[in-house]
Amino acid sequence: RIDGDRLWDSIMEMAKIGPGVAGGNNRQTLTDDDAKGRALFQSWCEAAGCTMGLDTMGNMFARREGTDPDALPVYVGSHLDTQPTGGKYDGVLGVLGGLEVVRTLNDLGIKTKHPIVVTNWTNEEGTRFAPAMLASGVFAGVHQQDWAEDRQDAEGKRFGDELDRIGWRGEEPVGSRKMHAFFELHIEQGPILEAEGKDIGVVTHGQGLWWLQVTLTGKDAHTGSTPMEMRVNAGLGMARITEAVHQIAMDHLPNAVGAVGQANVYPNSRNVIPGKAVFTIDFRSPDLEKLTSMRERLEREAAQIAEDLGLGLEIEPVGHFDPVTFDEGCVSAVRDAAERLGYSHGDIVSGAGHDACWINQVAPTAMVMCPCVDGLSHNEAEEITKDWASAGADVLMHAVVETAEI
Amino acid sequence: RIDGDRLWDSIMEMAKIGPGVAGGNNRQTLTDDDAKGRALFQSWCEAAGCTMGLDTMGNMFARREGTDPDALPVYVGSHLDTQPTGGKYDGVLGVLGGLEVVRTLNDLGIKTKHPIVVTNWTNEEGTRFAPAMLASGVFAGVHQQDWAEDRQDAEGKRFGDELDRIGWRGEEPVGSRKMHAFFELHIEQGPILEAEGKDIGVVTHGQGLWWLQVTLTGKDAHTGSTPMEMRVNAGLGMARITEAVHQIAMDHLPNAVGAVGQANVYPNSRNVIPGKAVFTIDFRSPDLEKLTSMRERLEREAAQIAEDLGLGLEIEPVGHFDPVTFDEGCVSAVRDAAERLGYSHGDIVSGAGHDACWINQVAPTAMVMCPCVDGLSHNEAEEITKDWASAGADVLMHAVVETAEI
Ligand SMILES: NC(=O)NCCC(=O)O
Ligand SMILES: NC(=O)NCCC(=O)O
Repeated sequence: RIDGDRLWDSIMEMAKIGPGVAGGNNRQTLTDDDAKGRALFQSWCEAAGCTMGLDTMGNMFARREGTDPDALPVYVGSHLDTQPTGGKYDGVLGVLGGLEVVRTLNDLGIKTKHPIVVTNWTNEEGTRFAPAMLASGVFAGVHQQDWAEDRQDAEGKRFGDELDRIGWRGEEPVGSRKMHAFFELHIEQGPILEAEGKDIGVVTHGQGLWWLQVTLTGKDAHTGSTPMEMRVNAGLGMARITEAVHQIAMDHLPNAVGAVGQANVYPNSRNVIPGKAVFTIDFRSPDLEKLTSMRERLEREAAQIAEDLGLGLEIEPVGHFDPVTFDEGCVSAVRDAAERLGYSHGDIVSGAGHDACWINQVAPTAMVMCPCVDGLSHNEAEEITKDWASAGADVLMHAVVETAEI
Repeated sequence: RIDGDRLWDSIMEMAKIGPGVAGGNNRQTLTDDDAKGRALFQSWCEAAGCTMGLDTMGNMFARREGTDPDALPVYVGSHLDTQPTGGKYDGVLGVLGGLEVVRTLNDLGIKTKHPIVVTNWTNEEGTRFAPAMLASGVFAGVHQQDWAEDRQDAEGKRFGDELDRIGWRGEEPVGSRKMHAFFELHIEQGPILEAEGKDIGVVTHGQGLWWLQVTLTGKDAHTGSTPMEMRVNAGLGMARITEAVHQIAMDHLPNAVGAVGQANVYPNSRNVIPGKAVFTIDFRSPDLEKLTSMRERLEREAAQIAEDLGLGLEIEPVGHFDPVTFDEGCVSAVRDAAERLGYSHGDIVSGAGHDACWINQVAPTAMVMCPCVDGLSHNEAEEITKDWASAGADVLMHAVVETAEI
């Protein structure tokens, strides 16, 4: 069994870096606080006898040697970056859970045949730089690195420049590593495990996603002196498309969700009819047909809304992945570990995207999930219990050790 | 007749301060550029032989002496602050038109019995600090000065602090001046005069207004892993209320308008269901009953929308004035001047709020309007012709001289 107190203490220690305003964290990717979090993680890894690798996308790889020099490593990990108003566990549990596996194996003097590598993937959240899971996507060959480095934040800063600025660009080419397997421990970020009273979710699939960035172009004009029939109101168009997104998701239930997360009007002045609106739509489903159908219906309805209001319309996909089916062998290793350890468990579909979803394309992959209180995540009030964290890390360790072989 | 070229040159000179990104201006109130604009205006006034007064709200008063030491001055003016993406004429025409009246009277060696005072009112636009027409409102006794100085911009900076910072707070108590009359020349900011082919609008009334700031409180949550039925989506509430505002205005036609100009969701992240939305509604009508009815219906519908979605709702009025009826004598002076000078003219209701709407409460007041291209304002593309500007300033001069008596 892993040391639940030590894991918990490390999580709380990490949470001191980039604190939020309401008990959670704001440690967005490639900020100064991200750099501090990375340095702390590195110091812990080195204290645990690992050597740190760093690639040109800032992905971190802490390696514990195996006994067979020819064996490919088993990777574990997740991400240390957070939402602007994020929780203490989203991502962090998976990285520090991986570290806890190494620490426990050290304590027990257990050597594995395959090396174990604990990974921190850069920019999983996708808030500062869309899309999410950017650096694991480059690693898996889904994105071109040049394109990824050109992603810009809201202030127009480039990913590549910010990576250089915080000093966490390595020399190692991205994706050059071959993996025996990859395991990611993560909080569910949804309400299912808690509702079903399960300690462990065995993640068999991941939802697919479309992120669509919509730009509506109307005409800035005075809210007082412009007659209703002369208005070309981009904000009204945004409102109608936001409602359409909701209706489309509702009409695709079950197994579908949709919302507008980012919404901006310009010039954003009380007495100016918005001449421009820029916002992003997030549609997800584990069912590829539904995912495609939602996107297509949205495109039709948005075109109609824009036409009715005389607005210019541009829809740019800024994030996408198809639904994912994880590796049967790795999934079994997780399920068997939960069973063996006596934790209540059930199969589950991941509602969120994870680095594991991309790595699944280049290595046998699976995920372990633990519940979170009220299913709440991407919220500073995100909470889990120490027992849930311990159970998740226990299952992670057993699945990893079984795969890495003693 | 005034000197149309000189007036135009001054407008273009002023437009060089705080240029926008698309040919207009971003010279928001109490910014460094506002200070530069004020200094330029002061230098021109002094060159024209005026003495400058400055009150504790930063209102500027350039005085040209009259022949009767006991006669109250006739005031003319408007504002030099602009929208963030504003035009070159909104406000500026009225201030520099007033200056042009003084310059022309100087050229012609005309002395008036009453002094003439050209005024620049602080923070007319209300974008940086709501409400609009803030300093003329304090002058007219509509707002408490303490309250006005406590207004904050989006970054939490106080009006009073910013006034001190730019160095344009005077010593003179606000509202201590008595006026014989007040005239404001302004662009229409709407399409009516141009459509009717009129050079001059004789402003008989002003629309009333309600600005309502709405705060919806839901729950930040993950867009992917939160089932549709568990969402408390403040952004969806904002969308529905935005549509309601539009429908309510449409149902009150004619003589009613409504829109949402400012719209913000939090945390404004692609994969977070907005837990908070803050936005402002702008309703206007020349008809008090319609204005009240729109506000009341909005409050009912917003309450229903919030209840349906499980959202917390707060509605704070951040700006209000009743419909205005301008002074008959001053309105006649404007109409007579236009008639005498041979300009085509018609009576008109101001769609926008103006400093004149407040000053009307403490002095006989009227306004002169000139057309603007396509009715476009609060837009960098705002345009007028030199002829329209000249006609407006001509009418202003004749109305002023008639009222100030030779
Ligand atoms: N786990 C997680 O929140 N990842 C960010 C990408 C997503 O929105 O699913
Ligand atoms: N004239 C003008 O745009 N004033 C600002 C206040 C308003 O929105 O009416």
